[in-house]
Parts: sequence; structure tokens; C-alpha cells
Amino acid sequence: MYFKLYGLWFSINPKLYSIVNKVIYGKCQTDRLGKYTLDRQGKNTIYTPPLARLIEQLQLLPGVGPKTAQRLAMHLIKRPEKDVHALAQALIDAKKQVGLCKVCFHLSAEPVCSICRNQNRDRTTICIVADSRDVIALEKTREYRGLYHVLGGTISPMDGIGPEQLHISSLVQRVTKEQVKEVILAISPSVEGETTTLYIGQLLKPFTKVTRIAFGLPMGGDLEYADEVTLARALSGRRELD
Amino acid sequence: MYFKLYGLWFSINPKLYSIVNKVIYGKCQTDRLGKYTLDRQGKNTIYTPPLARLIEQLQLLPGVGPKTAQRLAMHLIKRPEKDVHALAQALIDAKKQVGLCKVCFHLSAEPVCSICRNQNRDRTTICIVADSRDVIALEKTREYRGLYHVLGGTISPMDGIGPEQLHISSLVQRVTKEQVKEVILAISPSVEGETTTLYIGQLLKPFTKVTRIAFGLPMGGDLEYADEVTLARALSGRRELD
Repeated sequence: MYFKLYGLWFSINPKLYSIVNKVIYGKCQTDRLGKYTLDRQGKNTIYTPPLARLIEQLQLLPGVGPKTAQRLAMHLIKRPEKDVHALAQALIDAKKQVGLCKVCFHLSAEPVCSICRNQNRDRTTICIVADSRDVIALEKTREYRGLYHVLGGTISPMDGIGPEQLHISSLVQRVTKEQVKEVILAISPSVEGETTTLYIGQLLKPFTKVTRIAFGLPMGGDLEYADEVTLARALSGRRELD
Repeated sequence: MYFKLYGLWFSINPKLYSIVNKVIYGKCQTDRLGKYTLDRQGKNTIYTPPLARLIEQLQLLPGVGPKTAQRLAMHLIKRPEKDVHALAQALIDAKKQVGLCKVCFHLSAEPVCSICRNQNRDRTTICIVADSRDVIALEKTREYRGLYHVLGGTISPMDGIGPEQLHISSLVQRVTKEQVKEVILAISPSVEGETTTLYIGQLLKPFTKVTRIAFGLPMGGDLEYADEVTLARALSGRRELD
């Protein structure tokens, strides 16, 4: 990195360059690859400002780096104005309208979600999951016809998340007040997930039957390549052939 | 796929199911994986409608499938309203404000882009590229200090794109009217790209010096694994050691 000051060129470390730039021009910006997309006047010479702002905003999305953000922005710029407005409107509407169901805490645009409102579902079974994404994954199987309860996370003392931060008290109320015959725990088997499963299991056992989903070899999985913990779980969870 | 009609269950082919559904309920929708995300009443039971619309809109982006769209939507829903509005606004602003530079046809928020306006650049050299993305790629090298001319595509009779559909007449005007000493052709070496290069080369040779960028082994590339065409190009493009 070279640096021109009062007509003389200096060789300079890029980190230092950015600091010097900040001191002199009051602003300095590098893209995520560490490339300098601003010239010495603090002006972006590569992207025109509205495009630069769009790329910056797109980069905040998960899994979107500078290259993908550029590709998306270039694609959007070339689409008709109507389509771009539709996307912007969908973003604003989704954020404004979607909240949590007051019964099960699943994402919902109405006070009570469509699953809780559906009278054809089995109201005596509640499946407990950590996140709304898990509800969607389970719904896609089209196998489960009961209700859900979304905890909003797992017990993780390291992150300051105790049972009070999760929707557990409302779950206990549901189980004790409504006629719940079975509670199915469907929480991912991480350390935090196991803790949460054990905690809720102990809490609800006095009131109802508590089960948890099976862990074992995934469908299409190869026994030879499965890890030891999965295989041990598959062995201990074996059941009689019917 | 099973289908209940007048209290009886029928086994039915999924394609047929969707047609029957359309006939009976007037609407039917499947997601891109072919899963049925709508129930028999035509209601989406998996995503709440504003979220479904957002996922649908995100899926229109290049390289974004149903899974990524869901992940992005879930992430956006959980971000503060301010951030979501910033993204929506950036989208609208970029589309509204960014047009083409009237000199070089690069993307620009002003009538003449910052590259064409920059008086420190070498105004006697013009680099011809197919797309605005190529300008950005070349600008990132920080090696080239001349001007650009964006064609807006390559000659492709198959797609009905002839020289008239590209910004070629304005290029000839620039070369003949301004003092241009060199024109550098930087177009990707596809069949269409080669055609365009040859066409423009023939067109501009009477007026100025015409060069094209080098093709050969990429930096960090392995000679052993390079394809024959690249190697042949690297051989024919050899130059004396200096």
C-alpha cells in the first residue's frame, strides 16, 4: 500500500493506511475482503452510492458475502421496478404483520396461529420445539397432526438463558389446564438441547405422558460412516420388529 | 397421496391431486420442492401469509432456493424493524436512482458516472467490456486508470442480439470524435465474446490502436491441470522475457 502526502509517496501498512485515512478524511471504509473501495477523498469509485448502500445492506444477510451481495444487487438493478417494489413491500409487510401466536409462540400474522385454530388437529398432543423453524420442518413431514409449543430457544446458562427466558411457564399452564395426553419433546440433541429436554421432562412428568423423538441412523445414512454417538443412540433406542 | 371425499379415502397420484384440488377449490399451490404447503381448503398451514409472500419474493433472487429463502426470511423476521426498513429502502432507492452513464453506459446514479467525470484518469484509453460487472472487476485490480465503455452484452444472433442492440455506435462516435490512442478489448472468450471482439476490432482498427487482454494460465494455476485451449492460448500469447 502506497500513500501520497504533500507530493511524496510513502510505503505504508494497509491497517495504518486506514487509520491515517480516518484521521485525515474523517471516514474510511474497506469492504469485507479488505479491499479499499473508497479513494482518498472518501468517495467510492467502484459502486455508485445507492448501489453501494444496497450491497452493504444485502451483506448483512446470513450467508451473503461481498460477492453474492454484488451479484444480487446487480440482478435487482436489472429487474423491472415493479418486482423490486414487490420485494421491498414483502419485507416491510412481513416484519410489520408477523408476530408470535399467543398460545404456542409460533410465528403468526394473527393473534392465534392457524395450527392452534385448526379444529381438525389432535388437541391432546403437544410437540415442544426450540424454534419456529422446527415447527415448519415437522409440518413438512405431514405426519404430525397435534399442536406445538415453541420455547424460543434452549436453556443455555453461558448465554444467560435460563428457563425464565423461555416460554416454559405458559407451557406448564397449557399442560395442566388443558386435557393434554402426551407431550413430545423434539429438541436437537446438543448440550443445551439435552439440558432443556431433561428440565422440561422432569417438570411435566407429574402431569402427563412425556416422550421424545427417536435418535438414530438417518434414512439413507450409511452405518459404516455414522459417528459413534449416533450409533450408540441407535443401538440403545432399538425396538422390536413388528 | 391420500384424498378424502365424502367421508371416503382415495389413493391418488400427487399430480392428479393438485388438479383435483384446483377444480374443487379453485386454487392449488406447491412449493419448488413439489411439497404441498397448502391444505385442502387452499390455506397455507406452514407459513403465515406475509411470511409466505416474503419467501416467495426471496426465491426469485438468483441462487436462492426454497431453503435459503426460508432461512433469510426467518432471519429478517427476527431483526429489528429499523434494519428491515433500511434494506427495503436501499432496494427502492437503488432501483429508482441508478441508471446508465450517458458516456460509457456503466451503472451510475448521475447522468455521467464518477469514472468518466474523474479528470485524473487517462482519457486516451478506453477499455471495452460486455457488462457493468466487468467494470467493477477491473476497477478492483486498481491497475487500470483509463476510461471504460460498457456494451451491455455480446453479439449473439441466437438470442436476437446484433450490433444494433449493443452500445456500439456510441463507441465509434467516442473513438472518432475524442482523442483516443488505444482501445482495449476485455470481453470473456466465449463464442459470443470472440465474435464481438472480432467485430469491434475490425470496426475500430481504421481509427486507433486496438488491443485485447491476454489469455493464458491464471495466477496460481497448475500447468498440468490447465485445459488444452487455455494452454494453446498461453503458448501463442508468449512474450520475450524482459
